[in-house]
Amino acid sequence: MREILEKLINEEIGIEECERLLKADTILEFDEVAKFDKSRSSRTGFPEAVFSPSKDYGDLLLIVKNYLDSENPENLIVTKLSSERYEKLANDLDLDGFKLNYNKRAQILVIRNKEVPKTLGKVGIITAGTSDINIAEEARVIVEEGGCEAITSYDIGVAGIHRLFPQIAHMIKEGVEVLIVCAGMEGALPSVVAGLVDIPVIGVPTSVGYGVGEGGVVALNAMLQSCAPGIAVVNIDNGFGAGVFALTIIKGR
Amino acid sequence: MREILEKLINEEIGIEECERLLKADTILEFDEVAKFDKSRSSRTGFPEAVFSPSKDYGDLLLIVKNYLDSENPENLIVTKLSSERYEKLANDLDLDGFKLNYNKRAQILVIRNKEVPKTLGKVGIITAGTSDINIAEEARVIVEEGGCEAITSYDIGVAGIHRLFPQIAHMIKEGVEVLIVCAGMEGALPSVVAGLVDIPVIGVPTSVGYGVGEGGVVALNAMLQSCAPGIAVVNIDNGFGAGVFALTIIKGR
Amino acid sequence: MREILEKLINEEIGIEECERLLKADTILEFDEVAKFDKSRSSRTGFPEAVFSPSKDYGDLLLIVKNYLDSENPENLIVTKLSSERYEKLANDLDLDGFKLNYNKRAQILVIRNKEVPKTLGKVGIITAGTSDINIAEEARVIVEEGGCEAITSYDIGVAGIHRLFPQIAHMIKEGVEVLIVCAGMEGALPSVVAGLVDIPVIGVPTSVGYGVGEGGVVALNAMLQSCAPGIAVVNIDNGFGAGVFALTIIKGR
Amino acid sequence: MREILEKLINEEIGIEECERLLKADTILEFDEVAKFDKSRSSRTGFPEAVFSPSKDYGDLLLIVKNYLDSENPENLIVTKLSSERYEKLANDLDLDGFKLNYNKRAQILVIRNKEVPKTLGKVGIITAGTSDINIAEEARVIVEEGGCEAITSYDIGVAGIHRLFPQIAHMIKEGVEVLIVCAGMEGALPSVVAGLVDIPVIGVPTSVGYGVGEGGVVALNAMLQSCAPGIAVVNIDNGFGAGVFALTIIKGR
Amino acid sequence: MREILEKLINEEIGIEECERLLKADTILEFDEVAKFDKSRSSRTGFPEAVFSPSKDYGDLLLIVKNYLDSENPENLIVTKLSSERYEKLANDLDLDGFKLNYNKRAQILVIRNKEVPKTLGKVGIITAGTSDINIAEEARVIVEEGGCEAITSYDIGVAGIHRLFPQIAHMIKEGVEVLIVCAGMEGALPSVVAGLVDIPVIGVPTSVGYGVGEGGVVALNAMLQSCAPGIAVVNIDNGFGAGVFALTIIKGR
Amino acid sequence: MREILEKLINEEIGIEECERLLKADTILEFDEVAKFDKSRSSRTGFPEAVFSPSKDYGDLLLIVKNYLDSENPENLIVTKLSSERYEKLANDLDLDGFKLNYNKRAQILVIRNKEVPKTLGKVGIITAGTSDINIAEEARVIVEEGGCEAITSYDIGVAGIHRLFPQIAHMIKEGVEVLIVCAGMEGALPSVVAGLVDIPVIGVPTSVGYGVGEGGVVALNAMLQSCAPGIAVVNIDNGFGAGVFALTIIKGR
Amino acid sequence: MREILEKLINEEIGIEECERLLKADTILEFDEVAKFDKSRSSRTGFPEAVFSPSKDYGDLLLIVKNYLDSENPENLIVTKLSSERYEKLANDLDLDGFKLNYNKRAQILVIRNKEVPKTLGKVGIITAGTSDINIAEEARVIVEEGGCEAITSYDIGVAGIHRLFPQIAHMIKEGVEVLIVCAGMEGALPSVVAGLVDIPVIGVPTSVGYGVGEGGVVALNAMLQSCAPGIAVVNIDNGFGAGVFALTIIKGR
Amino acid sequence: MREILEKLINEEIGIEECERLLKADTILEFDEVAKFDKSRSSRTGFPEAVFSPSKDYGDLLLIVKNYLDSENPENLIVTKLSSERYEKLANDLDLDGFKLNYNKRAQILVIRNKEVPKTLGKVGIITAGTSDINIAEEARVIVEEGGCEAITSYDIGVAGIHRLFPQIAHMIKEGVEVLIVCAGMEGALPSVVAGLVDIPVIGVPTSVGYGVGEGGVVALNAMLQSCAPGIAVVNIDNGFGAGVFALTIIKGR
Repeated sequence: MREILEKLINEEIGIEECERLLKADTILEFDEVAKFDKSRSSRTGFPEAVFSPSKDYGDLLLIVKNYLDSENPENLIVTKLSSERYEKLANDLDLDGFKLNYNKRAQILVIRNKEVPKTLGKVGIITAGTSDINIAEEARVIVEEGGCEAITSYDIGVAGIHRLFPQIAHMIKEGVEVLIVCAGMEGALPSVVAGLVDIPVIGVPTSVGYGVGEGGVVALNAMLQSCAPGIAVVNIDNGFGAGVFALTIIKGR
Repeated sequence: MREILEKLINEEIGIEECERLLKADTILEFDEVAKFDKSRSSRTGFPEAVFSPSKDYGDLLLIVKNYLDSENPENLIVTKLSSERYEKLANDLDLDGFKLNYNKRAQILVIRNKEVPKTLGKVGIITAGTSDINIAEEARVIVEEGGCEAITSYDIGVAGIHRLFPQIAHMIKEGVEVLIVCAGMEGALPSVVAGLVDIPVIGVPTSVGYGVGEGGVVALNAMLQSCAPGIAVVNIDNGFGAGVFALTIIKGR
Repeated sequence: MREILEKLINEEIGIEECERLLKADTILEFDEVAKFDKSRSSRTGFPEAVFSPSKDYGDLLLIVKNYLDSENPENLIVTKLSSERYEKLANDLDLDGFKLNYNKRAQILVIRNKEVPKTLGKVGIITAGTSDINIAEEARVIVEEGGCEAITSYDIGVAGIHRLFPQIAHMIKEGVEVLIVCAGMEGALPSVVAGLVDIPVIGVPTSVGYGVGEGGVVALNAMLQSCAPGIAVVNIDNGFGAGVFALTIIKGR
Repeated sequence: MREILEKLINEEIGIEECERLLKADTILEFDEVAKFDKSRSSRTGFPEAVFSPSKDYGDLLLIVKNYLDSENPENLIVTKLSSERYEKLANDLDLDGFKLNYNKRAQILVIRNKEVPKTLGKVGIITAGTSDINIAEEARVIVEEGGCEAITSYDIGVAGIHRLFPQIAHMIKEGVEVLIVCAGMEGALPSVVAGLVDIPVIGVPTSVGYGVGEGGVVALNAMLQSCAPGIAVVNIDNGFGAGVFALTIIKGR
Repeated sequence: MREILEKLINEEIGIEECERLLKADTILEFDEVAKFDKSRSSRTGFPEAVFSPSKDYGDLLLIVKNYLDSENPENLIVTKLSSERYEKLANDLDLDGFKLNYNKRAQILVIRNKEVPKTLGKVGIITAGTSDINIAEEARVIVEEGGCEAITSYDIGVAGIHRLFPQIAHMIKEGVEVLIVCAGMEGALPSVVAGLVDIPVIGVPTSVGYGVGEGGVVALNAMLQSCAPGIAVVNIDNGFGAGVFALTIIKGR
Repeated sequence: MREILEKLINEEIGIEECERLLKADTILEFDEVAKFDKSRSSRTGFPEAVFSPSKDYGDLLLIVKNYLDSENPENLIVTKLSSERYEKLANDLDLDGFKLNYNKRAQILVIRNKEVPKTLGKVGIITAGTSDINIAEEARVIVEEGGCEAITSYDIGVAGIHRLFPQIAHMIKEGVEVLIVCAGMEGALPSVVAGLVDIPVIGVPTSVGYGVGEGGVVALNAMLQSCAPGIAVVNIDNGFGAGVFALTIIKGR
Repeated sequence: MREILEKLINEEIGIEECERLLKADTILEFDEVAKFDKSRSSRTGFPEAVFSPSKDYGDLLLIVKNYLDSENPENLIVTKLSSERYEKLANDLDLDGFKLNYNKRAQILVIRNKEVPKTLGKVGIITAGTSDINIAEEARVIVEEGGCEAITSYDIGVAGIHRLFPQIAHMIKEGVEVLIVCAGMEGALPSVVAGLVDIPVIGVPTSVGYGVGEGGVVALNAMLQSCAPGIAVVNIDNGFGAGVFALTIIKGR
Repeated sequence: MREILEKLINEEIGIEECERLLKADTILEFDEVAKFDKSRSSRTGFPEAVFSPSKDYGDLLLIVKNYLDSENPENLIVTKLSSERYEKLANDLDLDGFKLNYNKRAQILVIRNKEVPKTLGKVGIITAGTSDINIAEEARVIVEEGGCEAITSYDIGVAGIHRLFPQIAHMIKEGVEVLIVCAGMEGALPSVVAGLVDIPVIGVPTSVGYGVGEGGVVALNAMLQSCAPGIAVVNIDNGFGAGVFALTIIKGR
C-alpha cells in the first residue's frame, strides 16, 4: 500500500487513480464460475486445492484449465475426484509441461510441474481399520505435497489394543511431530492414542460404520467428546483438512 | 360479489341461484391430478410455477398440457426439471405459439409466449462457491421472469473474506435493492454480507457439504442463527423461493 | 477515504500518518468485553441493539454504561431482558436524560433520549395463538422503534381458518407493506397467509409446542418447507430479527 | 374352547389330549419364512395383507403361493409392490380362479376371487398436492377392498386455502364419515381441515418435500403438533394404515 | 346465509348492508389476547377447551373471565393446568353459578354449569405403566365431558404380556367402541393391543422414559411404526387429543 | 391347568366354572395404580423391582405398601430413588419385620426381610471415570441382591490405557464370568475391554458428557458401534438392567 | 513371558535381545492393509472374522489370501459379503484344501478346512417378521460356526401376540440357553419375549421399517428402552455381534 | 524396564519377582473413586487436571485431598467448577503451602505451589461475542498455566467483519503461533480467520445461541464444515481442550 501512497505524493498518479489502486490491490481476477486466490497459495506455501465433488464437470474443467493457463501456475491439487472424472479430465486437458499424478485410493489428483522435497518434518498417520485407509491416504498425499514425510501404520484398531503400543512407540522414535488418526465405527482410537503421547493428535472421523454409526457421526462425536486432552478434530472423511492442519503446525516450527 | 347481489335485487336471478353463485365464485376448475389457481398468477404478476420433482411424469405432462390448452394461458415455469424430463416434455408438447426456454444449470423450464422486460428493479445474487451456482441460477431465472434485472457474482466465499468487499460495493453502487446470498458448507456468507449492507439479505442454504454438513442443514441453521440482523432465510436449495421473495419486496415499491 | 488522501496530497499529513488513518478509519473503540459499531447504527438508521440473555450481568451493565457515556449516544435497545435483570439495571444506571421504556411482554428495554415518529410505513403483525404474543410484541417494539407503524391481530390460528380472512383483508386495506406472522405448534399460519397475499411474509416460528414440537423446531421447519412462495423465515422466537428485516424492506422504499 | 371341554367331559378325548388341544387352539401353521394369521382376516372382515418392500422376492412368492394353495383362501393384498416385482409375480403365479388387480399408482396388488361391494360407508380422501396422490390411491384401494366407497379430491393444498372450502363442503354433504388427508411439505392441510369439520380426520404425512422436509418428517410432526383436535396420524406414506384405520371406524358403526 | 339474502329481496336491508352481513357472518369477537370460536363448540357438541401451559397467567385469566362473561357460556375446559395456577385461578374468578372441577392427576379444570350425562358410548383407556396414568386420566376427563363412559385399566404393560388378555377381553365384552392406549418407554402396548382387537386403537405416547427414550419420542415412533394396522397416533402426552378423537368417532355413530 | 381339568373330569366343577378358572389362572390382582407380577419374581429368583422416577409419590407409596401387605412378600427393590423421596418413604412405611437398606450413590432402596448370600458367581464392574460410579453402584447392588459377588474397579478410563491391563487381568484371575463396563464421554472403554477378554461384556453408557455428548448418546452409540464383538449394550444409565442381565447369564450356568 | 526371562537367566539371550523379545511378544505381522490377531482366535475359540462391506475389493482379496497363506490357518469368516463379491472372490482364490461355504441370505462366507461340531449348547433365534430373516440367518451361521446348535422360529411378530407363546415354550423345552430376537419396525418383540423367559435375551434391531422407522433406529431405541429387564442389545443388523455374544455366554458355562 | 532386567541378571531379584515388577511398572495407585496418572503430568509438562462437573462433591474433595497429600504434588487444575463448589472446597481443604487461584469467569481453580513463567510461546485467543468470553478465559488460564503468554481480543464477531482485520494483524505481528477462536451462534468466525492467516486455528464452539442453535451444535458443525482449511475443532465449550491442544503444538517447537 505504501508504494501506492508514495506514487501519489510523488504525483506519479492522481487521487482518483490512487483510490482505485488501493481498492484494486485486493480485487481478484474473475471468470464465470470461480475466483482464485493465487496470492494465498504463495503466502501459505501450500498448493492451491480444488474440492471437486459438488462441482459440475464443466466447471471443474474450466477452473483447472484457467489455472494452468494463468501466469506462472504452481502445482494444483484436486480432491475427492473419482476415477471416472479423472480419466475424463486427463483426456480433456492440454498439460504442457505439467504431469498428472492421480492417487486412486486417496481420490486426489496432483497436477505438478515440480516435485516437492519432503524435508519440512514428519507426520504420523494411523488408521483404526482397513476401511479407513482411503482417507488416511488423502491426508498422506496432502502432507507430502506440503513438503513433509508421512509415516503410516494402518489397521491398528482399538479392539486389539496391544497391537497399538509398538506402532506408536515406533513413530515417536522416528520423530513424528504430529499424529493424524483416522477411525470410523466407534472412533475410539484417537482418544487412546492421545492418552499415550504428548504431541498434537488430529482426529479424522471416517464414514465407516453401519446402523447407528452410519455416515461417521458416532466416530466424530466420540472424538470431540474424548476424555483425553490434546486432540482436535476435523470433519468426517476430511483427510485433506487434517493434512493441511498438520502442515500449518509443522510450518510454524 | 356486489354484481351478483345486484342481479338478485334486479330479479335477474333467484335466491337459490344467487346463493349458488356466491359459493361458485371461489370454486375452481378440476381435473384429475391438479387444481390450478389462475387468478393468483394475474393477481401477483408472477407466472404460475410447477414444482416438478415429486410428480409422476404423466401427471406433469397432463398439468402442462391442460395449462397450455386453457383460455389465455400466460407464461408457465417448471422448476427442478432434469434434462431427461425436459427432453421428454419437449417431444410430447404441442407448443402452438409458445417457446421453450430451458436453463440446464437452474433446472428450470420457462414456457413463454411473451418476453418479460427487466425493468422493475435490481436484485444482487451472490454465491459462496462454484458449487452453489446452480441454485443461484434458479433464483436468477425467477427474478428475471418476474421483471427484474439480476446482477450476479459467484464464488466469493468467506474463507477469502477480502474477495468479498469489492463485489458487494459494486452491487450497492449498481443499485440492487435486495441481495440473494447462496451458500453451502458452513453457510457464513449471508451473515458477513448482512453485516456490511443495509438492504434485505435473503439467505439460501445449498445442499453443498459433506460429513456433518451433508444435505445443507448446517448452512441452513447457521443462517437462521446468524448474529447479524437483516437476514431472512428460505429452505435448502430453494432458489425459486428466494427469487419470488425478492420479487415481492421489489413489487411493493 | 478521499478526504484522507487529499490531506496527504496537501501535505497536511505524512505518508505514515495517512497509512495509519486509512486503517484507523475502520478500527473501533475497545473495552474489555465488547466492541461497538457505532457507525453501523447511524448508517442503517436503526438503534444499536444488545442481545442480552447469554451475557453475564456485569458485562451487560458495563456495555450499557459505556454506551451511554460515549459521545452522542443514540437510543439503545436491549433484547430478551428478564424483569429481574431489568429492575437491577434500572437501579444501577445513571440515566442522565435518557428514559427507560421496558416492555415486559416483549422482554425489551428501550433506552431513549428521543421519541421515534412512526411514519416510514406500516407492518402487519399476526399470531396464530395467544402464546405467540410475546414474540409478536418483540417484533412490534422493534418495528416501532425503527419508525414504522405496527398493525397487530393476535390469536387467529389455522384451526379456525375462517377467522383469518377478515383480519388479513383489514390489514391489506390499511396498507401494510410487510406481514410478520408468528406461529408455534404446527407453524402453518404463514403458509396459509402467503397463499392469500402478494406482499412479503416473514415467518417467525415460536417455541410454543410440546411433544415432537417442543422448542419450536416443527414450526420452523414447516415454514421453511412451505408450499407457498413469498415466505422467508427467521430463527425460532426471533421477533427482533423479523422486525429488523421488515424495516430493511420498508426503508428501501 | 368350550367344544374341547365338552369332548373331554363326554370322554371323547382324555386329559392330555384336552390339554394339548387347548394349547394347539392358538398354534398356527408353519412354513419356512412366514406364519399366517388366517383367523384374523375372517375376524376383522378385511383381507390379509402383505407388506412387500423389505421382503426377498423368493420369500414374497412363497408367501403368496402358500396362501393361494391354502384351504379356502380369500382375497389377498400385497402393498408397496413395484411394477417390476408385480410383473415377475404375475408370471410366476398359477392363479387358478384368482384375478390380479394391480394399481400402479398405489403400488398395490389385489389378488381377488370375488368382488367386494362398496356398501359399508363413505370415506373422503384429500391430498394437498399432486405429488401426494400415490399415497392417497393406496388408501383408496384399501378402503374400497374393505367395502367402503371412497370420494376423492386431490391437489387442494393450503397455499390456496379458498380452494379448500367447496371441496370439504361437498364431501360432508355426500355423507363421508371419515376424512383421510394426505400431505407432504409443511403438512398443514389436516390441521386446517380438522378446524372445519367434526368427523375424524386421519392425517397421512407423505415423503414429499426437500431440504429440511426431506422424507416427510416435517409433515408428520406438523400433523402430530396440530393445534386442531380431532386428528390422529399414521406413519409417513402409510396410506395402507390410514385406510385400515378408517375401516375400523366405519365397521364399528 | 339464506336468511340474509331473503332480507335483501324483501328490501329489509340494502345491498351494502347485505354484503356487510354476509362477511360479518364469519367475523368473530375480539379481545386483546384471544379470539373465541363459540360457534364451533355448539357445532361439535364438545365444550371449548383452552390449552394453558404456554400462556401467561394474565392472559389465561382474561380468557376464562371473558368466556364466563359472554352470552350463554357453556362448560369450559382448561388443560395442562398446574395445581399452583389452578389455585390462583380459583381465587381470581367470580364463578356466578359455575362450579370448578379440578382433576389434579389429569391437570384439567372443568368449569361447569351443567353435568354431562355419559350416554353416548363407551371408550376403553389402558396404560402400560403406573407412570402413564396422568395422561390416561386427561383422556378420561375429556371422554366423560364429551358424554361417553370411560372404562379404564392401568399398568398392564407389555413385559408381562399375559396380564393383558383378560383386561382386553373384559373391555370388549363391556362394549367399548374405541381403545385409547397410553404408553411410554418402548411404546409397544398399542401394537400388541391392535393385534388382538378390531376396533380403532388410538396410541398416546407418553413422555415416560430415560436415556434414549427421554421425552417420549421412542414411544411415539414405535407406535407410528407399528406393524399392526388399525392404530392411529396423537402427539406425546396428548391425552386431550386422544379423548377428542375418540369422541369424534363415537359421535359419528 | 391340569389340576383344573381333573376337577372337571371328577365333576367337582362344571364346564362354565372350568372355563372361567382356565382364564382366571392368568388373571392377576388389581389395585388402582399397578398390577403386580408376583409369580414372575419367584420364577426368576430375582426380587421384584419398582422403577420410581416417573411415578407420583402417592402411587409409589401405595405400590410399596400394598406389596408389603401382600401374602408372603419377598425382598423389594426401588430404583432411581432420590434421598428426599427415600426419607419420605422411610417415614411413611410401617415396616413390620422388613429392613430398609438405602444406597445413596446407587439411588436404590432394598426393602429386605432376609439377607441374600453372594454365592452364585462373580461379576466384574468397571468404570471409565469417577463420574460413572453411581451407575456402577446401581449395577453392584442389583448383582449382589441377585446372589452374586461383585468385584469393582473404578476410574480406569481409556485415556490412560495402560492403567487398564492390570485391572482386567486381576478380575479374570478372580474368576469373574461377566464384565459390566460403565462409561460416559466417548464410551470407548467397553470396546477396549472386549478386545482383551473372552467373557461377555455388558456396556452401560452413562449420561456423563457435555457438548455433543450431553446425555450419554455418544457413549451409547459408540458402544453399539464397537468394532469388538462380544459386547451387548443397555440403555443410558441403566445400571439396573445391566445387573439383571448379568444375573440371567450367571443363573443359567 | 516367563520363557523369555528364563532364556535370559540361562544366558541363552542377552539383555537387549530379551528386552526386544518382551516387546516383540505382542508385535504382530504386518502387511499393507491389515494387521491380524491370530492369537485372539485361538484364545477365544471362535474363527477370525472379516467385516467386508467398507473394504475395497482389492484389500479384501489380499487379506483373505494372506490369511490362507499364513501358517496353520483356521476357519475364516467373511461377513456382509454380497453375492457379486462372493463370486469374484471364489474365482480369485486358490483354495488348496479349504472349502467355501456361502450363505446368500446371511451374506456370510465361511472358508473352512474342518467342520465344527454343534455340541456346546443351544441358542434360540426368533424374528418378528419375514424381512428380519436375513439378519437372523447371519446370527445362526455365527452360532453354528462357534459350535452351538441354533433353533429358529421366524415371523412370530408382536401384532399377533398369541402366535408367540407356543414358539417360546417350545424353545425353552428344547433347552436353549440364550435367545436372539431380531425385529425391525417398532422393535417390540424382545420386550415381550423378555417378559416371558428368564434366560438372557439379545435384541437385534433390523433396518426394516419405513417413514420414521427407516434404518432401524426406532427398533433399536425401543429395545434399549424396554421396560422388561434381562435384555441387552447390539447394533442395527448386527446378527454377527449377537451370535458372538451368545457364544461368549455359552462358552463360559 | 532395563533396570529390572539388569537386577535379574545380577541375581538381585528372582524370575517371579522380575515378572511381577515388569507388570507392576505400569500399575498405579488406587483409592476408592479415582486413579491418578502422575507420571503423565511430568511427561507432558502440563499440570494434572480434574474435570469436575459430573463428580459428586464428596468424590471431588477426596480426589483433591489425596492429590495434595501425595508425594511431591505439583500444581493441580480443577475445571468447570462453580463458585459455590469452589467456596466449599476452599473451606474444606488444608492447603499447607498451596495457594488457591480461582477464576470465576473461567470457572477454573488452580491449586498452586509455584508460579509458572509464561515463556514458551504466544497464543492468540479471540471471541466472536461478549457471551463467549467465559470459554475463552478457560482457554487463557490453561495456556498460561502451561507456560505460554495469551494475547486476547474479545467480541470481534463476523457481523462487523471489518472489526476483525486490525485485531488479527496485531496478533500476527505480536508473534502468536496458534489462534484459539471461540464462537457460538452461527460459528463463522474461525472460518473467516483461517482464511486470513497461515498458523493453526483451533475452533471452540460455544453453547451460545437460541432456537436452532441452542446448545452450540450449529456453531460446532459450521466449524467442522468450514470451507477454509487449517482449522481443527474441539467440543462445545471445551476451552480447556483448546488450551491443552495449543500447548502441545507450542511445546513441540
